[in-house]
Amino acid sequence: MRQQAGTNLPKVGSYNQNVVLDTIRSSGATSRVELAQRTGLTAQTISVIVRRLLNDGLVREDGARPSAGPSGSGKPRTTLRVEPTAGYAVGIHFDPGWIDAVLVDLAGAVLAETRRGLHHSVRPEEAVALMSKAVRKVVRDAGIPQRRMLGIGLACPGPIDQELGLVLYPPRLSGWEQVPLGELLEAQAGSPVTLDNDATAAAIGERWSGVAKNVGNFVYLYMGTGIGGGLFLSNQVYRGPFRNAAEIGHVTVAPDGPRCYCGNHGCLEAVACPDAMVADAHRLLADGGGGALAARYARDPASVDHDAVCAAATTGDPLARGVVDRVASYLSDVAVSVANMLDVELFVLGGPALGAVGEIYREAIDEALSLRPIARRVHKAPVSLSPAGSSAGAIGAASLVFHRAFAPQLTALLERTMP
Amino acid sequence: MRQQAGTNLPKVGSYNQNVVLDTIRSSGATSRVELAQRTGLTAQTISVIVRRLLNDGLVREDGARPSAGPSGSGKPRTTLRVEPTAGYAVGIHFDPGWIDAVLVDLAGAVLAETRRGLHHSVRPEEAVALMSKAVRKVVRDAGIPQRRMLGIGLACPGPIDQELGLVLYPPRLSGWEQVPLGELLEAQAGSPVTLDNDATAAAIGERWSGVAKNVGNFVYLYMGTGIGGGLFLSNQVYRGPFRNAAEIGHVTVAPDGPRCYCGNHGCLEAVACPDAMVADAHRLLADGGGGALAARYARDPASVDHDAVCAAATTGDPLARGVVDRVASYLSDVAVSVANMLDVELFVLGGPALGAVGEIYREAIDEALSLRPIARRVHKAPVSLSPAGSSAGAIGAASLVFHRAFAPQLTALLERTMP
Repeated sequence: MRQQAGTNLPKVGSYNQNVVLDTIRSSGATSRVELAQRTGLTAQTISVIVRRLLNDGLVREDGARPSAGPSGSGKPRTTLRVEPTAGYAVGIHFDPGWIDAVLVDLAGAVLAETRRGLHHSVRPEEAVALMSKAVRKVVRDAGIPQRRMLGIGLACPGPIDQELGLVLYPPRLSGWEQVPLGELLEAQAGSPVTLDNDATAAAIGERWSGVAKNVGNFVYLYMGTGIGGGLFLSNQVYRGPFRNAAEIGHVTVAPDGPRCYCGNHGCLEAVACPDAMVADAHRLLADGGGGALAARYARDPASVDHDAVCAAATTGDPLARGVVDRVASYLSDVAVSVANMLDVELFVLGGPALGAVGEIYREAIDEALSLRPIARRVHKAPVSLSPAGSSAGAIGAASLVFHRAFAPQLTALLERTMP
Repeated sequence: MRQQAGTNLPKVGSYNQNVVLDTIRSSGATSRVELAQRTGLTAQTISVIVRRLLNDGLVREDGARPSAGPSGSGKPRTTLRVEPTAGYAVGIHFDPGWIDAVLVDLAGAVLAETRRGLHHSVRPEEAVALMSKAVRKVVRDAGIPQRRMLGIGLACPGPIDQELGLVLYPPRLSGWEQVPLGELLEAQAGSPVTLDNDATAAAIGERWSGVAKNVGNFVYLYMGTGIGGGLFLSNQVYRGPFRNAAEIGHVTVAPDGPRCYCGNHGCLEAVACPDAMVADAHRLLADGGGGALAARYARDPASVDHDAVCAAATTGDPLARGVVDRVASYLSDVAVSVANMLDVELFVLGGPALGAVGEIYREAIDEALSLRPIARRVHKAPVSLSPAGSSAGAIGAASLVFHRAFAPQLTALLERTMP
């Protein structure tokens, strides 16, 4: 489909600059000598690039520190760090149920955040007005200069058409087909908008400032209203040639299981998303299941929701724990298949629907990965919970802006420049 | 794990040269103008690179052909093709049951081939002597000049340690642990040896001269003694950071199914490899199953083998067809999960154990891919049978040599040169 393209000097120059910036960022603090070692670039190239990054204000030099030596008299080395105030981005996570907004600096620190609920009957124009208001609020709360705002990242539930900036048909919102959400927000907020799928955004966020900073190959299991995935392979976001990769929620885990809205049977999402868990709990309660959850909701078992199931599972209620363990087991099956297929270095688990049971899922997946993949004796991939918690979508959204501007992307190195 | 490295002019030069050669090869015949369009390189860069390829004898110019024009008087264009005689490689496919050898020219044509059976008690030294003899035979049969032999590619059942050139523990061969097969063959045959897993080799062969010539993202489902996989993602072989990716045979397809030797339950390989199919047929026959297969083997049902099952399935024997359809259904489940995970452009089905039923499998997978992946309406990936038939492993092995020497590999563009 896509031809393999050659490259040229200007592309190599800006690619190398991004490699150096990315290495400084992911190291926290580093020196020119270490940069040369880690990137394979010559000392002279490093020197030229660092000078440019200092001039552009993207990097700062932390005075000379003496290098370690027996007498402490070694040649002094200066330490390079990303300048956090060089640029800021707003991340908006748009979910059928709410809007989350964060303002993040270039080093990934969250300086302000806000959240507000959405009614399922919200219209696109209302949602855009609320997003725009949230952008203004976090910019004002953080007190950053407007000229340092690099842009807005917008993470939405899939599917989306990234090139056209369209949200195609988000779950649970009627009248929301093919909405040019990116364009609408850009017009109203007056900043450029980068749109992406929420799971992909969360993965990019983890790579930019989370647990996957130094990881070239990882998968993000995103637990939201549905179950999504994000993939980094060989240091690049892997979207697939038609941009529909990482649909982890639609991997078959129960061949004889219920029909999924996608048309397949027994998809992970169909048996493990919050709604499926709630339905499972309701069924078990209706069948006369006992325990703390049953007792607490004895008068109105139909009001048991996802939060209630997760909370009861963490306190050892057997019925709720059974529901959660079943999901943990499905997630483990998918993780084992992903390990066998892609041999990734790390699994990251995150998203708003992890609820209180993230650690239960993490342990189950971790155990499965030490027992089942064929290459487990060569390498067992660790499983991490995203440190971003329920803000994973919004922080990921903000990182879309930085990733677009500063990540060393092979597509930019290798693809033809459009005339 | 692996740091993202920068690049430099010499690496870019040789990468661009390989991009141009690869584009000429995959096009069959092309012109300098088309090359510039397809690679994004400038006319001047193309001109310099093509001159070098002509000087090196890797490419030939097919006299001027007038370009199409109303009067036929347009500026003449010369056509560039790969020079098939510029280099040759021998491919050896080593399987527990036999050795296949082919001699292939640079354009991918098979000029000679040979096969011989192996006893399961064969010792490494004997096997190497037989491989070396097979190399001499195909070189002699093809009558090529020794100095044009670029090397030997060796495809083995996994797992292997490619960097150390070790076959780790091939199925069904005792006393074969950690054998440095590449080194042994290199010493005896006197040509450099490139070792790889049989499924990966088959995928590289398909990309070099088969159905995946112009395909950047595809998966190869390799049916041998076990079931393996090969992955091309974004125009590169994807091996994973620990070189254990594409273990398609160990994706879970029957969560409550039999235990696989890998430690997992219900792996594709455990329920769909030739041995599993034969066991399935034996069980059905023992349970009193009727039909043509049962009648033919009434006296000795235990002698029904994989070939017999496949042959009976193609003539409509219900028992045999049931066995084959079950495998087709498992393969389809895996294909749907791969489509959801990786959004590939093409599925290739090949390997020696396809037997007579490749088309049955192909149709089943094709139907599943049109009905089940979430993005099926955006793009439905086609499924192709490998045209290499049972020589897929050997042709793939030969292509390892060309791929190593001439494919535009990002690892060469981006990784640090070791001092």
